[in-house]
Amino acid sequence: MKTILCDALGIKFPIFQGGMAWISDASLAAAVSNAGGLGIIAAGNAPADFLLREIRKIKSMTDKPFGVNIMLMSPYAEEVAQVIADEKVKIIVTGAGNPAKYMKMWTEYGAKVIPVVASVALAKLMARSGAFAVISEGGEAGGHVGDITTMALVPQVCDAVNIPVIAAGGIADGRGIAAALMLGASGVQVGTRFLVATECNVHENYKSMVLKAKDIDTVSTGKRLGHPVRAIKNNFVREFSSKEYDNSVSDSELEKFGEGRLKLAATDGDTKEGCFLSGQIAGLVNREQTAKEIIEEMFSQAKEILGKAGSFYE
Amino acid sequence: MKTILCDALGIKFPIFQGGMAWISDASLAAAVSNAGGLGIIAAGNAPADFLLREIRKIKSMTDKPFGVNIMLMSPYAEEVAQVIADEKVKIIVTGAGNPAKYMKMWTEYGAKVIPVVASVALAKLMARSGAFAVISEGGEAGGHVGDITTMALVPQVCDAVNIPVIAAGGIADGRGIAAALMLGASGVQVGTRFLVATECNVHENYKSMVLKAKDIDTVSTGKRLGHPVRAIKNNFVREFSSKEYDNSVSDSELEKFGEGRLKLAATDGDTKEGCFLSGQIAGLVNREQTAKEIIEEMFSQAKEILGKAGSFYE
Repeated sequence: MKTILCDALGIKFPIFQGGMAWISDASLAAAVSNAGGLGIIAAGNAPADFLLREIRKIKSMTDKPFGVNIMLMSPYAEEVAQVIADEKVKIIVTGAGNPAKYMKMWTEYGAKVIPVVASVALAKLMARSGAFAVISEGGEAGGHVGDITTMALVPQVCDAVNIPVIAAGGIADGRGIAAALMLGASGVQVGTRFLVATECNVHENYKSMVLKAKDIDTVSTGKRLGHPVRAIKNNFVREFSSKEYDNSVSDSELEKFGEGRLKLAATDGDTKEGCFLSGQIAGLVNREQTAKEIIEEMFSQAKEILGKAGSFYE
Repeated sequence: MKTILCDALGIKFPIFQGGMAWISDASLAAAVSNAGGLGIIAAGNAPADFLLREIRKIKSMTDKPFGVNIMLMSPYAEEVAQVIADEKVKIIVTGAGNPAKYMKMWTEYGAKVIPVVASVALAKLMARSGAFAVISEGGEAGGHVGDITTMALVPQVCDAVNIPVIAAGGIADGRGIAAALMLGASGVQVGTRFLVATECNVHENYKSMVLKAKDIDTVSTGKRLGHPVRAIKNNFVREFSSKEYDNSVSDSELEKFGEGRLKLAATDGDTKEGCFLSGQIAGLVNREQTAKEIIEEMFSQAKEILGKAGSFYE
C-alpha cells in the first residue's frame, strides 16, 4: 500500500505505532520501524534523560525512520522538547495540548510535526501553525481521549485542512485501515494492538488484560478533571469513577487518587490498582504477535478488502 | 450499489432512514422509500393510534417497502407491537431493549425483525432469537446511545454473528457508507442527515440547529439514569448535565426534568428548553435537500470512493 505519507516519511506502510506512556520504548518502536511502519517512542511524564536514552538506543537498533511522542502536559515538556531538537528527531507527534511554542525550534532543522487532534478547530489551528499532518483521534482510543469518534471526526477534519490526516481510535485490523482510508485518511495510528506485540516490554498482566477484554470492557473516566482517559474496567477504575461522581471528593483529592496508576499497571502489572489504558478495539485483539506479523497481517487484510470494494457494484 | 440487504428487503440502496421519535412520520419515511432506501416510521413514545394512522398514510404514499421502529421502553410498547402485527408491517426495527417477547408474533406472518444493538452480547442474543439482521449503532449517533463507537463496534459485531449487520452512528455521506462497508456492514442507517430532508416535518428551528452544529456541538447526557441520549448542546442540555452531576438532585427529579423535552424541540422548536437529539456527524450536514437528493448524492460519492480503493496499490 502506498499513500502520500509513505514517501514523505520514508516508511513502507502508512501506520504509526501510538506513543503510549511507560510502554512505547525503543524496543517496541524499533520493531515497528524495522517492520516498515513508524515506531514512536513516548516521552510520557518521564524526565528528559529517559527519552535521551531511548532515542540513542533506537538509533542503534534501526536505520529506519522513527518518531517521538511528546505529551505536552508533562512537567518535563520543556526539557523533552529540547532533547528532541538536540537529537534532531525528524518526526514529532504531540499530544495533550498545543505545540505552537516549540514549532519554530523543531521545524528549523527540518522536523515534521504531527499533532494529535480531537476537534476540527484544533486541526485547523495546527495546520495554520505549520504542522505537516494531524492525527485525528477518536474517543474510542485508549489513554487521553476526546469526545468525538473516529467515524465522525476524520471526515470533518479532512474537509477542514489541506494536510494529510492520520486516523486513530478503534483501528486494530485491516478493516479499520480500509475504513480509515475511505473516510479520507492517508494512514492510521494504532496503539492497543501494538501493546500486545512480542517486542512490547509492558508487564505480562497488562497484555493479558488487553487480550481478554471484550467490546464493553473499557470506559472513559476523569472528564471532571478536564482530561478524560480510557482504560480497562477494574477495581481502580470503578473506585475512581465513583469518586468522580461524588461531590464530597475534591478535584485535587481525585487527581491525587489517580496519580501513579499507569506505572502501577505498565511496570508492576497490578491488575487491581493499576490503570490499564486501552482502546475499545481491545475486543478485537486476541493474540500476541511480533510487530512485523501484526503489520503484515493488517495490511494484507486491508488489501484484500479494498481490492473487493468494486464488487458492491456487480 | 448492491449488498445482501437490497434483494432481501426489496430496496435499491442499502440505507435505512433512522427511526426518530416525533420526527420520522409517514411523510419522511415515504420520501425515503420512494427514493429507493428504507423509510422507517418511528412509534416513539406515542400511543398506538398515532402509528396506525401513519402506517395507513404511508401505504397510500408509496408501494415500496417501509419499516416501523418500535421503542421498547415506550409505555405503549405492547399495543404498538400489536398494531405492527395487525398491519402486517414487514420490516420491524426495535430499539432500547430486547424484543424477544414479540418475536414469535411478528415472525409468524413473515416479518423481518432488525434490532438496534450497542454491544456484541446483545447482537449475539438477537441473532439467536431469530433476528433477520442487526443495526450496530455507535455512541456517536443521536438519541439513545451506547458507549461503543461505530468504528469499534461494527467489526466486533460482524465477527460475532452470521446475519447481516447494518452500521449506524457517524454516517452522513458517501465516505461513511464506504467506511461502513469496509468494516463489514451490508448497509447503513442514517438519522441526522434525513432530519434536514425537505420532506421531514420537524420544526424549522430543529433543522437550523442541526445545520449550524459543529463537530463538538453534541453531548451525551443521562448516563446516571441508565439511558444516555446524545443531543445538541443548549440551555436545557447544560442544565440537565449540571443536575446529573449534582448529588442533591434525585434520580426521579432528574428524570422529571427531562420529560417532554423532545416534543418541545421537534414540535415547538424551543431552542432553549427543548432537547434536540442529533448525532456527532451533524457537523457534516450543511444543507436541506430532498430525501432523493440525499440518497443519490451519498451513494454516488460512495461509488466514486470505493471505485478508487484499488489506487492505494499503484
